Amino acid sequence: MSLLVCGTLAFDSIETPFESRTDMVGGSATYFAHAARYFSPVGVVGVVGTDFPDSVIGDFSSRDIDSRGIEVAEGKTFRWAGRYEADWNTRTTLDTQLNVFAEFDPKIPGDYRSSDYLFLANAEPALQRKALDQVETPKFVLADTMNLWIETARADLDMLLREVDGLVINDEEAFLLTGKRNLFVAAEEILKMGPRILILKKGEHGAFLLGEGLRFALPAYPVAEVVDPTGAGDSFAGGFMGYIASVANVEPSTLRRAMLYGTVTASFCVEGFSVETLAHRNRAQIESRFDELHSLLSV
Amino acid sequence: MSLLVCGTLAFDSIETPFESRTDMVGGSATYFAHAARYFSPVGVVGVVGTDFPDSVIGDFSSRDIDSRGIEVAEGKTFRWAGRYEADWNTRTTLDTQLNVFAEFDPKIPGDYRSSDYLFLANAEPALQRKALDQVETPKFVLADTMNLWIETARADLDMLLREVDGLVINDEEAFLLTGKRNLFVAAEEILKMGPRILILKKGEHGAFLLGEGLRFALPAYPVAEVVDPTGAGDSFAGGFMGYIASVANVEPSTLRRAMLYGTVTASFCVEGFSVETLAHRNRAQIESRFDELHSLLSV
Repeated sequence: MSLLVCGTLAFDSIETPFESRTDMVGGSATYFAHAARYFSPVGVVGVVGTDFPDSVIGDFSSRDIDSRGIEVAEGKTFRWAGRYEADWNTRTTLDTQLNVFAEFDPKIPGDYRSSDYLFLANAEPALQRKALDQVETPKFVLADTMNLWIETARADLDMLLREVDGLVINDEEAFLLTGKRNLFVAAEEILKMGPRILILKKGEHGAFLLGEGLRFALPAYPVAEVVDPTGAGDSFAGGFMGYIASVANVEPSTLRRAMLYGTVTASFCVEGFSVETLAHRNRAQIESRFDELHSLLSV
Repeated sequence: MSLLVCGTLAFDSIETPFESRTDMVGGSATYFAHAARYFSPVGVVGVVGTDFPDSVIGDFSSRDIDSRGIEVAEGKTFRWAGRYEADWNTRTTLDTQLNVFAEFDPKIPGDYRSSDYLFLANAEPALQRKALDQVETPKFVLADTMNLWIETARADLDMLLREVDGLVINDEEAFLLTGKRNLFVAAEEILKMGPRILILKKGEHGAFLLGEGLRFALPAYPVAEVVDPTGAGDSFAGGFMGYIASVANVEPSTLRRAMLYGTVTASFCVEGFSVETLAHRNRAQIESRFDELHSLLSV
């Protein structure tokens, strides 16, 4: 297995201004894997409860998503409920039940340990480090984090940042992590904390890729209708890492193209609830949006 | 005169989270002209009161800005006061005194009337149309507008939209004008109202250029420190129209490059109060930022 994700598998209940849905399959690892598999086989490390449907796991396998790293623990699967306002930028968490994820101790299966590419989805930094420690000599590790860990687990997060190659966060998290209000000033500070590259997500306003001698910006793909933004960040990471794993290098030109592929998979994600749209694309549809996005950037 | 702007000359008083300044030279025509003159001679049509310093007019002339279209009327110059919050996106108008601008009746000097390129800065649409009517056969007319006119002068605005080639507005104005919350859906509606091209400004998140078969997106230039965003939109328009006037065509490739030049002049604008930074650049500095921005977009 060349590409691995460690993250959550969950049931999400979502309210949007237009529709509400309960108990949909979600979670960072789910979104990541469904985006990454268009480019590369991907292994999932996570935990579910006994209430998680076998059919979802079966669906993974039929799509080149290796589920042997998914542990089934006694109890209920992680649950999250949230509501989006009409501008899509304001998200309110209505309920979080960690359930089996509260006791999650990631165990990376033996033949996953030689993976070259690893995504550590948002989780307590100590847990992310536990997963990272089990991967022998990864070539490129990307981590996500969130406000909660910046505020409550800073020492662990600082250690993690020294051990990963890339960090993907949104603009508000970058401001919180650095105390700087300017995106590029904040980025420079973060790059001093350890990662070689930083991906700054700005939601509907696109994303920046920053590193030494590397500055790349691109807008979000202009979807005609947003249905549910949940999972967009993890779907972005999936397209990004999946493409990198498929070409097996992290040259600047690869990273730039990976940003476009991540933007494309995120765009399919937001066009449906759960992975309803994202999971049912084909590579030709991915390439078509890649070309559209590329032309949007061409001077 | 090939390029013309009709807009305001003003005194601005600005409060930012870091500094306050009173009675600085501002106004849409001032910012536009100072940005455009790096590319093309530009004529200004506007009105000032007897309190407007001759030295500012003299400064225009020394920079290829033709001031013969600036009328001096009995009374005080337009005054505006505003405050920015720490995120720069929230702007509160503290005071507006139209003064001589309240009675402004634009009179385009005879030898300006054959201008090819015209920018109608934000003003009552009926006033914009009066200026437009005096230009004989313009090749490309760009207009700006604002929420106030969308809400209170819609019939005049609709007439104006049928007479111009391009409209430049921000995302909120596009939503208000169309009732659509999706930027690209809103853009399609606006293009049906008359203009061939639409520039959607998103402040620190950059801008989109849209037209038939034309979709181009670019981020704002990443300035290290914003001092005062006032005039950024008009400085953008100045760089955009100045470049177009200098190459004398509106091919898609010209429009795309013009978007980059507009982004560059806007970036110099926000780095100082009034035109303190914008006015004191040279073409080499403009080109250097153009190249930086271009590389930011290169896949």
